[in-house]
Amino acid sequence: MEFVTGIKKSECCSIEQAASGTLDGQTVRMEGTIHTIRDMGEVAFVILRKAEGLVQCVYEAGKTPCALSDLQDSMSIRVTGTVSKEERAPQGFEIRLAEVEILSRPYETLPLQISKWKLNTSLEAKLNYRSISLRNVKERAKFKIQEAIVRGFRDYLHRQGFTEIHTPKLGAKGAEGGSNLFRLDYFHTPAVLAQSPQFYKQMMVGVFDRVYEVAPVFRAEKHNTKRHLNEYTSLDFEMGYIRSFEEIMAMETGFLQYTMELLKTEYAREVKLLGIEIPDVSRIPQVRFDEAKRLVSEKYNRTIRNPYDLEPEEEVLIGRYFEEEYGSKFVFVTHYPSKKRPFYAMDDPADPTFTLSFDLLFEGMEITTGGQRIHDYKQLREKIAARKMTEEGMEQYLDTFKYGMPPHGGLGIGLERLTMKLVGEDNVREATLFPRDLSRLTP
Amino acid sequence: MEFVTGIKKSECCSIEQAASGTLDGQTVRMEGTIHTIRDMGEVAFVILRKAEGLVQCVYEAGKTPCALSDLQDSMSIRVTGTVSKEERAPQGFEIRLAEVEILSRPYETLPLQISKWKLNTSLEAKLNYRSISLRNVKERAKFKIQEAIVRGFRDYLHRQGFTEIHTPKLGAKGAEGGSNLFRLDYFHTPAVLAQSPQFYKQMMVGVFDRVYEVAPVFRAEKHNTKRHLNEYTSLDFEMGYIRSFEEIMAMETGFLQYTMELLKTEYAREVKLLGIEIPDVSRIPQVRFDEAKRLVSEKYNRTIRNPYDLEPEEEVLIGRYFEEEYGSKFVFVTHYPSKKRPFYAMDDPADPTFTLSFDLLFEGMEITTGGQRIHDYKQLREKIAARKMTEEGMEQYLDTFKYGMPPHGGLGIGLERLTMKLVGEDNVREATLFPRDLSRLTP
Repeated sequence: MEFVTGIKKSECCSIEQAASGTLDGQTVRMEGTIHTIRDMGEVAFVILRKAEGLVQCVYEAGKTPCALSDLQDSMSIRVTGTVSKEERAPQGFEIRLAEVEILSRPYETLPLQISKWKLNTSLEAKLNYRSISLRNVKERAKFKIQEAIVRGFRDYLHRQGFTEIHTPKLGAKGAEGGSNLFRLDYFHTPAVLAQSPQFYKQMMVGVFDRVYEVAPVFRAEKHNTKRHLNEYTSLDFEMGYIRSFEEIMAMETGFLQYTMELLKTEYAREVKLLGIEIPDVSRIPQVRFDEAKRLVSEKYNRTIRNPYDLEPEEEVLIGRYFEEEYGSKFVFVTHYPSKKRPFYAMDDPADPTFTLSFDLLFEGMEITTGGQRIHDYKQLREKIAARKMTEEGMEQYLDTFKYGMPPHGGLGIGLERLTMKLVGEDNVREATLFPRDLSRLTP
Repeated sequence: MEFVTGIKKSECCSIEQAASGTLDGQTVRMEGTIHTIRDMGEVAFVILRKAEGLVQCVYEAGKTPCALSDLQDSMSIRVTGTVSKEERAPQGFEIRLAEVEILSRPYETLPLQISKWKLNTSLEAKLNYRSISLRNVKERAKFKIQEAIVRGFRDYLHRQGFTEIHTPKLGAKGAEGGSNLFRLDYFHTPAVLAQSPQFYKQMMVGVFDRVYEVAPVFRAEKHNTKRHLNEYTSLDFEMGYIRSFEEIMAMETGFLQYTMELLKTEYAREVKLLGIEIPDVSRIPQVRFDEAKRLVSEKYNRTIRNPYDLEPEEEVLIGRYFEEEYGSKFVFVTHYPSKKRPFYAMDDPADPTFTLSFDLLFEGMEITTGGQRIHDYKQLREKIAARKMTEEGMEQYLDTFKYGMPPHGGLGIGLERLTMKLVGEDNVREATLFPRDLSRLTP
């Protein structure tokens, strides 16, 4: 009988090992895809693309036992060769090719020049050839930054005693009401796709006190803007036993601080490659909604048209104001008007026109919405009644409160928006592997 | 201007702190929900439920400044009291109550007796009152085991150089063909819900060499069994530059070994609470599909009815065989018949009737399907043509191969099935927070 006992030590060498200097002069094996070939006459540089970066391999006519013309871009190969220090090479070393084994070959030349430093093409072309455009090292680096954000979110919350949950995306009713829902037939029953894990994460606060989820959400919004997606990844958490909604903002600030450190340490390569300036999140200003409106109206000489709404331009100006006045790219705007928040938002006892809630703006764009929730069953039902909403389909959600729930609150962060702002893009599609928008359902 | 600078040290004490012994004799604060009250006359035990476990608080008439009748099950409270060692208490300590602050109260008594050690009710009732039944400590412990599995998967793969990805769940076409798809209208375009991230994770191998995703998948299967869900969480990975599909099984074995260690160390409390015997995964037998059928047919005196299919009872017997003969709860069954695998599965060059693929069985139940994929563009198109399938809707997937792809393979693990088997349940709904099946779309 044969047994599987776990992974074996790879016969192939990683970039890190080769770059360490300890293998200089030795023969190593390495695998990768030919990113580009630069023919210099006597020698040629065969640039290998690996997940961690590019590697310079040196082809020498007469020494490397294959014809240079046998090699082409986008071939997957396994090479054997001698490592030597070379400061001009991408990783500070190069491999002099002694053997080249072709593992796989392309059938056509690439439709995009992915080996260029900056992929010089339209967003449309990038998305149409998504699995190709992402092979460009700058393009893919954005998604390592995205990975860091998600790791930071999970690792930080885990350390803070949160439990990870997985809640259903198919349901009978949406959390925020009727509009903007994708509808479908579920074995002859009408169903919708979750626009947020709101109800479920609240229900789970009664079980685990603090919970988080990283999962897709679906919004059938007919917005066609640079910052809207119809499916995105939401970073959600919900925490019980809070004394104030400010604890939620403090938790988010803690997550951001942790993640910026993670970027500086474990993602330094991608941070450098993309020229990211890690924002200072040691302290994030917080300002009331009405006060923020007043401040930008005064400073930028702008009339307040609607005291209960924030226009996108106002958001941008609030971002600008706090960058100019306090040097912060982030600002918490608190106490949003009650009528702009869902029924479960807790109204401010001092003035129920406003809620104990907040948005976090990053360079003037909303990346988070959060706040304290109503935890008292009667209060919750009264607010539903006052809004002339129906309780239908919310029975089990409401029962959770009937049987007792601690005070709690939480937030949702749009992963792609946070990624987009961090990597310095101005279209959220640039920070999404396979974006879904009004006109895009493929690839 | 006010600033948010991160989380503050909690005024409340954790179970870990109180159980450490260093606070004995000191006054502490603690928050939680009243799990149950045991009135002994002069004193009463007020059992507090927290995420980490139960805490015994001692109410003493005349000393605790509230009436015992003021307190009731399911109230959220904040208490102040003196910690003292008490070996008969759940955590080895108790808190003598000096102050009790009521944070929130229930409006009705619970429909389920969640404070019983074992929740003595039907699965149906458990699921109908899901947010309540999960408050039972044994019920919720299953989902800490589930958390450990997901952490193990991510942490192990991260260390092995995998990149985490997030791929869309809304698309124009499914990975496995036409049936079993949930269909919906996407802004007047026909769309489907992803039944697997298969195409996307393969496309991303060309970008990051090794990728993984933890996300929901949707299957409109009309099965009403103990092991089928219509929405579940899939643990997927895909790895490039493999020399054999056995490397995929080795990687999965490594993940299982890592996760069992994680359970023993960081989840010892839940492992003990649920009475889990951690299975030995130091070596997992591997057996060919045809050989496995022959072995169980001989040992259990069973006729092979169809050499190209595995009946559920045969799976169970294979599990039994390898437990009896080799003491292993797990077995890799390899070389599934080609006609039972999707078009992208790589056929065995030695006998194309079979594929370079495998299932992992855990106690006779399939928890993983994986294998090597076709990476050659022509070969892939030929197989599509041979199966009389259409390439429509797969253009961008196929283009990825046209422009070159390394040899690769991967797998998908059903999170709920693995959890179910680990915690010793026999219905997958017991290992799902909010299951979705033929007749269940709520809560």
